[in-house]
Amino acid sequence: MATIKASVPKGTRDFGPIETQKRNYIYNTIKSVFRKYGYQEIQTPTMENLDTLTGKYGEEGDKLIFKILNSGDFYEKASAKKTAEGDFSSKSILPLISEKALRYDLTVPFARFVVMHQNEITFPFKRFQIQPVWRADRPQKGRYREFYQCDVDVVGSDSLLNEAEFICIYDEALSKLGLKDFSIKINNRKILTGIAELIGKPNQIVDMTVAIDKLDKIGLDGVEKELLSKGFTGADLEILKPVILLNGSNNEKLAQLKMVLKDSLNGLKGIEEIETVFSYLAGFDIKTAKVELDLTLARGLNYYTGCIFEVKTNEVAMGSIGGGGRYDDLTGMFGLKNLTGAGVSFGADRIYDVLEELNLFPKTAEESTKVLICVFGKEEEQYAIPLLAKLRSVAINAELYPFGAKLKKQMQYANDKHIPYTIVIGSDEMQSGKLTFKDMNSGEQKQATIDEIVRSLSC
Amino acid sequence: MATIKASVPKGTRDFGPIETQKRNYIYNTIKSVFRKYGYQEIQTPTMENLDTLTGKYGEEGDKLIFKILNSGDFYEKASAKKTAEGDFSSKSILPLISEKALRYDLTVPFARFVVMHQNEITFPFKRFQIQPVWRADRPQKGRYREFYQCDVDVVGSDSLLNEAEFICIYDEALSKLGLKDFSIKINNRKILTGIAELIGKPNQIVDMTVAIDKLDKIGLDGVEKELLSKGFTGADLEILKPVILLNGSNNEKLAQLKMVLKDSLNGLKGIEEIETVFSYLAGFDIKTAKVELDLTLARGLNYYTGCIFEVKTNEVAMGSIGGGGRYDDLTGMFGLKNLTGAGVSFGADRIYDVLEELNLFPKTAEESTKVLICVFGKEEEQYAIPLLAKLRSVAINAELYPFGAKLKKQMQYANDKHIPYTIVIGSDEMQSGKLTFKDMNSGEQKQATIDEIVRSLSC
Repeated sequence: MATIKASVPKGTRDFGPIETQKRNYIYNTIKSVFRKYGYQEIQTPTMENLDTLTGKYGEEGDKLIFKILNSGDFYEKASAKKTAEGDFSSKSILPLISEKALRYDLTVPFARFVVMHQNEITFPFKRFQIQPVWRADRPQKGRYREFYQCDVDVVGSDSLLNEAEFICIYDEALSKLGLKDFSIKINNRKILTGIAELIGKPNQIVDMTVAIDKLDKIGLDGVEKELLSKGFTGADLEILKPVILLNGSNNEKLAQLKMVLKDSLNGLKGIEEIETVFSYLAGFDIKTAKVELDLTLARGLNYYTGCIFEVKTNEVAMGSIGGGGRYDDLTGMFGLKNLTGAGVSFGADRIYDVLEELNLFPKTAEESTKVLICVFGKEEEQYAIPLLAKLRSVAINAELYPFGAKLKKQMQYANDKHIPYTIVIGSDEMQSGKLTFKDMNSGEQKQATIDEIVRSLSC
Repeated sequence: MATIKASVPKGTRDFGPIETQKRNYIYNTIKSVFRKYGYQEIQTPTMENLDTLTGKYGEEGDKLIFKILNSGDFYEKASAKKTAEGDFSSKSILPLISEKALRYDLTVPFARFVVMHQNEITFPFKRFQIQPVWRADRPQKGRYREFYQCDVDVVGSDSLLNEAEFICIYDEALSKLGLKDFSIKINNRKILTGIAELIGKPNQIVDMTVAIDKLDKIGLDGVEKELLSKGFTGADLEILKPVILLNGSNNEKLAQLKMVLKDSLNGLKGIEEIETVFSYLAGFDIKTAKVELDLTLARGLNYYTGCIFEVKTNEVAMGSIGGGGRYDDLTGMFGLKNLTGAGVSFGADRIYDVLEELNLFPKTAEESTKVLICVFGKEEEQYAIPLLAKLRSVAINAELYPFGAKLKKQMQYANDKHIPYTIVIGSDEMQSGKLTFKDMNSGEQKQATIDEIVRSLSC
């Protein structure tokens, strides 16, 4: 067999022990919060039928879907038809040689799941899902072809309690992960609709929101210039300006907005929804998050129909670390109409980078083995086995380095693996029963019996 | 957009909330044992380069690898070369339009990982990996195209302590999962080599072991008939018979075997290895497993070089639920020679079926939410929010059913979700502060304050 160079496809990553453990720490923290709020995990297959995915992500998205080749003699089966048609384009051949593709996100598989299992599901259905997705994007820093998404959604309930609880979930999960200063921005699609109605341009809502969204970057002048270039008039700008420059507390903003949107049913409905969410939040105990009404927030306008969210850390320069909102037609594409839902997601890769930069991973997130037993020879090894068994019997993660290696190498192993304690056993230790017990972080060591060591490691 | 039928590719499965939770229960139990023995988790990409996988699983295996189509205009890019060669077979076209494939097992990616990261890895490297793999097999009962493997391996240590600890890991993990009667069979490739040498047919070791392996099914007569048909002589059978019929305790078997194999260096080495493993086991505390020397055990003869294992439950008729062994050339295919290793795997899908059949899943494996608050109206909902927050603040998984649904529906929701407790709040409860607290399993209910409920749920 020829030697093959060991490499991974571009845009994909191996996760070694420490990285996997840190990632698990993030996922487990978030999962425990999801569960606390009554969300349950589901998993869907890596492969979906190609027609389940095609057409859901726009033309550009379709190109980025990884397709799986049919098994066996895929080309012989396809070529008769292909040749007959005389059309040799990839686009025409694709459906002849591929029927399956890799999951592109967790939303479409979730919709497919809900429709397929609608008779087994209890609604409101509260699910979370943490699985990898694949996109044939050009890889670059921070962008991978395989990455995890972390979604939490409820379908079949229109209560705004759900929206309020998503804010609680963000607050609790990110606080638990150690973030101390982050903002959860909230807006409502209906308010944006109301504003577009106000200036008589409901069809230009996207142009309008895209421009407003840039306020931070290009300032009011820049926003106005862009709006004018898109066909908005000076009169439109006069109406928009107070909305764009809205400031003060959330309540002050809402009060001003009610005045501005007093003639828009949509707008007033959006304001009422936000007020309801805020009234729920008053009963909960938001620990850390700054919840901010932000009218410049505009995401997924083709998709979201009610409240929309976006989460940003204020401690590190970094794009949004979460977002989501209310949608009203998740499952329509699979024939199940009028099922309302809401959901948010966590950007776990970015959260990883934030925790790394702020040094927020707890030391325990890097530990796995608690104590390593080092021995000088075969006799010591034999002596050590029941001690090893004793440590494990009280749920202490413990290893014995098999005899035959120098002590230095064994200590190096403990260091490399971030093992915080070692026990060294030589002939003196065997005779006295007093083992050499070392704290690898402080460097301190003392003589102790196995029972004393067990007690000290169990606290 | 046309309506698409909601379905999954054949041979793949959705896992709903209960199933996912039960699967997590199995994986988490096994993982906690892996960690207790010093093994650390790694994860490798779903996609590998096609040439990493091709040729590792035999010609039949290669056909079962799911290939991924190159992105973009895969056919235009390929057709020039293809047409020039005039070869239109799938086999010739494949390498032109596909460079990546789905992971077929965890062994080859692990080997690739070890070689690629050899300078970052601390040896002995003890890793476990639980990830899905894909095979384009014809789906049938119990056989899927996407399924999880659960592997634990150590490379860079030839100590037989590792083999002994794999037995401990099986014993502890399966005991923890509630299995009460299971056997861990052990054999050694070198003993099988010794036996084949004894009759002067070292090259026919596979014919020999395949026949002996059938003893249980076809009896001694059947085994002898098969051996004769493969070219073994009557004299060979006379030598083989005592080996095949070896019985008694492990020690008795080893004593007899030593006599039989006294002239085979390989055979004696294999016996010594097994004895060493047994001597380690004497120092550990094997809880439940029956560890049995079984000379008819023969698995992965092209791959394993030392001890081999197989695990069977004696409580349910079911194939092996685990197995593995020692190998000496895992990474040679990627150019890293002479790295010894040993590993075993858990058949998690089968273990799932065993636990299901024996009713061994604990009730908590189906629970997620601990208590559901049911309210009669909007006022009660408002009253309930701080109570809900209080429950969650002490780490109790709690939900509030948004107001607007009949009590019966709310109770049904609790039942469907296996929620063990409910709190009902109406106007009486709001006035008195004494909530109706119901145990959904026993049906008992009583009036209690939120503090009393918190205390009772926290125990």
